Amino acid sequence: MADNSLLRLEVAKANWALPAAGLVTMHSGNASGYDPEDDILYIKPSGMDYEEITPENVVPVRVSTGEVLIDGVRPSVDLPHHLFLYRNLPDVRGVIHTHSNYATAFAATLQSIPLCLTAIADEFGAEIPCAPYVDNEGEHIGEAILKYRNRAPSILMGNHGVFAWGASPRSALKAAVMTEDVAKTVWLAKQIGEPKSLPPEEAEKWYDRYHNRYGQGGSGA
Amino acid sequence: MADNSLLRLEVAKANWALPAAGLVTMHSGNASGYDPEDDILYIKPSGMDYEEITPENVVPVRVSTGEVLIDGVRPSVDLPHHLFLYRNLPDVRGVIHTHSNYATAFAATLQSIPLCLTAIADEFGAEIPCAPYVDNEGEHIGEAILKYRNRAPSILMGNHGVFAWGASPRSALKAAVMTEDVAKTVWLAKQIGEPKSLPPEEAEKWYDRYHNRYGQGGSGA
Amino acid sequence: MADNSLLRLEVAKANWALPAAGLVTMHSGNASGYDPEDDILYIKPSGMDYEEITPENVVPVRVSTGEVLIDGVRPSVDLPHHLFLYRNLPDVRGVIHTHSNYATAFAATLQSIPLCLTAIADEFGAEIPCAPYVDNEGEHIGEAILKYRNRAPSILMGNHGVFAWGASPRSALKAAVMTEDVAKTVWLAKQIGEPKSLPPEEAEKWYDRYHNRYGQGGSGA
Amino acid sequence: MADNSLLRLEVAKANWALPAAGLVTMHSGNASGYDPEDDILYIKPSGMDYEEITPENVVPVRVSTGEVLIDGVRPSVDLPHHLFLYRNLPDVRGVIHTHSNYATAFAATLQSIPLCLTAIADEFGAEIPCAPYVDNEGEHIGEAILKYRNRAPSILMGNHGVFAWGASPRSALKAAVMTEDVAKTVWLAKQIGEPKSLPPEEAEKWYDRYHNRYGQGGSGA
Repeated sequence: MADNSLLRLEVAKANWALPAAGLVTMHSGNASGYDPEDDILYIKPSGMDYEEITPENVVPVRVSTGEVLIDGVRPSVDLPHHLFLYRNLPDVRGVIHTHSNYATAFAATLQSIPLCLTAIADEFGAEIPCAPYVDNEGEHIGEAILKYRNRAPSILMGNHGVFAWGASPRSALKAAVMTEDVAKTVWLAKQIGEPKSLPPEEAEKWYDRYHNRYGQGGSGA
Repeated sequence: MADNSLLRLEVAKANWALPAAGLVTMHSGNASGYDPEDDILYIKPSGMDYEEITPENVVPVRVSTGEVLIDGVRPSVDLPHHLFLYRNLPDVRGVIHTHSNYATAFAATLQSIPLCLTAIADEFGAEIPCAPYVDNEGEHIGEAILKYRNRAPSILMGNHGVFAWGASPRSALKAAVMTEDVAKTVWLAKQIGEPKSLPPEEAEKWYDRYHNRYGQGGSGA
Repeated sequence: MADNSLLRLEVAKANWALPAAGLVTMHSGNASGYDPEDDILYIKPSGMDYEEITPENVVPVRVSTGEVLIDGVRPSVDLPHHLFLYRNLPDVRGVIHTHSNYATAFAATLQSIPLCLTAIADEFGAEIPCAPYVDNEGEHIGEAILKYRNRAPSILMGNHGVFAWGASPRSALKAAVMTEDVAKTVWLAKQIGEPKSLPPEEAEKWYDRYHNRYGQGGSGA
Repeated sequence: MADNSLLRLEVAKANWALPAAGLVTMHSGNASGYDPEDDILYIKPSGMDYEEITPENVVPVRVSTGEVLIDGVRPSVDLPHHLFLYRNLPDVRGVIHTHSNYATAFAATLQSIPLCLTAIADEFGAEIPCAPYVDNEGEHIGEAILKYRNRAPSILMGNHGVFAWGASPRSALKAAVMTEDVAKTVWLAKQIGEPKSLPPEEAEKWYDRYHNRYGQGGSGA
């Protein structure tokens, strides 16, 4: 097994960022990261305070089998959904789940977040869809994510919350943060008028600029 | 009398957490903890800034008699309601009272918080009920809590605020924080649609997972 | 002239607390304190960043004459209103002015904050009234405060913001903080229903408890 | 080329202030400053975390030609709009772009922020206008700013966000912060009533006081 200290640190950092970015209260969210060469993901321990998470205590799990590779500490109860996403979305290396307030308000009313802001075009390139309510049994959550997602790197789960993903735990974090940020702006806009969606050809101009000319090269996250 | 330094610290921490979690301004909330073996509770001093609270200055009160066991410092004016809860809810070891904004907005309009989110099913297993307005005399507040509570570990008091409780000051804090958090999300949802309550059998799936498979064993809080 | 280092510190602290409590952005509020024995008030320098305020640089002003007692530094442009209040409200020793968002939203629509919460009964004992719009010339602002105030220690100024006062800069701060806090809760409540005002005899029970049995003696603030 | 270490520091500070003031999440805003004697502006590097920005790594760009004067680091993708403003607004020395939530909610519904608060009269002296949606190609954004701006030092861009400017990066920051602050208050007011605009002659009294008698002399920012 390779030394995964860097991935462990990235997973700890993504978890630390959840309360810092205002996406969670108490223990209501979790982040993981995946190393396909080692067939291992690292994920938040269940019910642990964010400030107690360290690179050493994130929980290693074999992705192909779901086996927890350490004794005496339970992974997040949302582990099955993280596993499902890594197994079914080949390029994903980070997954985050939150109940962030504004995004979850859309989820509570089963509404997508419309593509009515250039910031949504930049980051998501599409509306952020909302899957219908599903329960927590079997692969129901993972299957609904696969069925209802579009090219946006996040999705709302009806009456539940948000799943976001990316090419690294940090990219997944950015998708989760931006989901809440645009959810807030669109929610605010809906109280004072009816925000109109951008035409697809306009949205494409922003998505293209952001994904091809933005950042310092590398992941762009 | 046993050394209660650990409980004193827990009570201080729960009070410190109230402003940190955004549940109070100035002095508008209080936390207590109860040790039944010693027949003592510790509670916030009246009108004291949260940052001046220490494990040493939380006020000891004999629960069976209501006697304040220290001279020269007054306990929170909400002491009678804390006493009533410890005397009437056998498993409760922590109580918190706040006027947190979103939850109190429901209380100001005498509305319960409906069970329309998986997060509410997780933590509360029921809607968070709202008791009618009662005044601050005698046992009116305590009696209303007993009469109108359900299995959720918190309740809204009409035109007033929130009481939350648990198996420790920390559990009571979690109930108080989650009450405000779900109040915010449901409030947001109500502005953009009508959130539908989860059917009872669906809610039970989340409550069961959270109370039986979540956390690292122990209190789960 | 007595050593006023304690009052200078109190005034600096009240100004520091304005951004910490979320009542101001940039320079949009100010606090002062008054020593009637010395006939001096100390007030925030005009347009100064809050973090640059010190007990040494708050501006001394003779209250009876309005004379600025130091060269080279201008007092807040709101000085005339502070002077007017100290001259006309005999027990006032601290004054604060803010444009805090929720309270100013009521002011922008010329609405009082109704006495519909026990927290409003506790601190204010009355609705928080809203004066009509007045301009910034002469004594217009001070006179409107006197004309439209009730026993509550704060008032909304139409299309403008909040003035709050008390027996010390700290008491004025508490009134300003609580004004914004209850404005937020009532604003939230109005989006999901119509909060009903407490009957006067009920409000009195809370006001009485808070002003006669609350705190550790002393100012109660 | 003169030593521009002071301007570099000011630009770094204005960028650091964006997340501190709650105007941005992740990388969603940027600040620049301009020295006309040197024909150079300094601007945020593209996609860089705010806490990694230093006076040394802000990106120098020749304003007359648009040439990036350093290798290996890309300027913000919004550089063309900053360049356009410096070339066309002779007194401007600082520019800021954000997607701050409340202001962008007005932009998403193509509404100006009405001059209904004394704080808006103070800082802006006019409503804050909203330009129609324009795409990110050529000089479309810069041209729309020029066409739709009034004397206020900021403008809303339809479905997009905010541009603000001033006589220094710090003044531009103040305009950006105050834009969001008054957007929030007006948004709040619109939920509980219909805020009425101040008559122009009343607005002028506040604008005059703020621009001629406020602050410690100097920039007034």
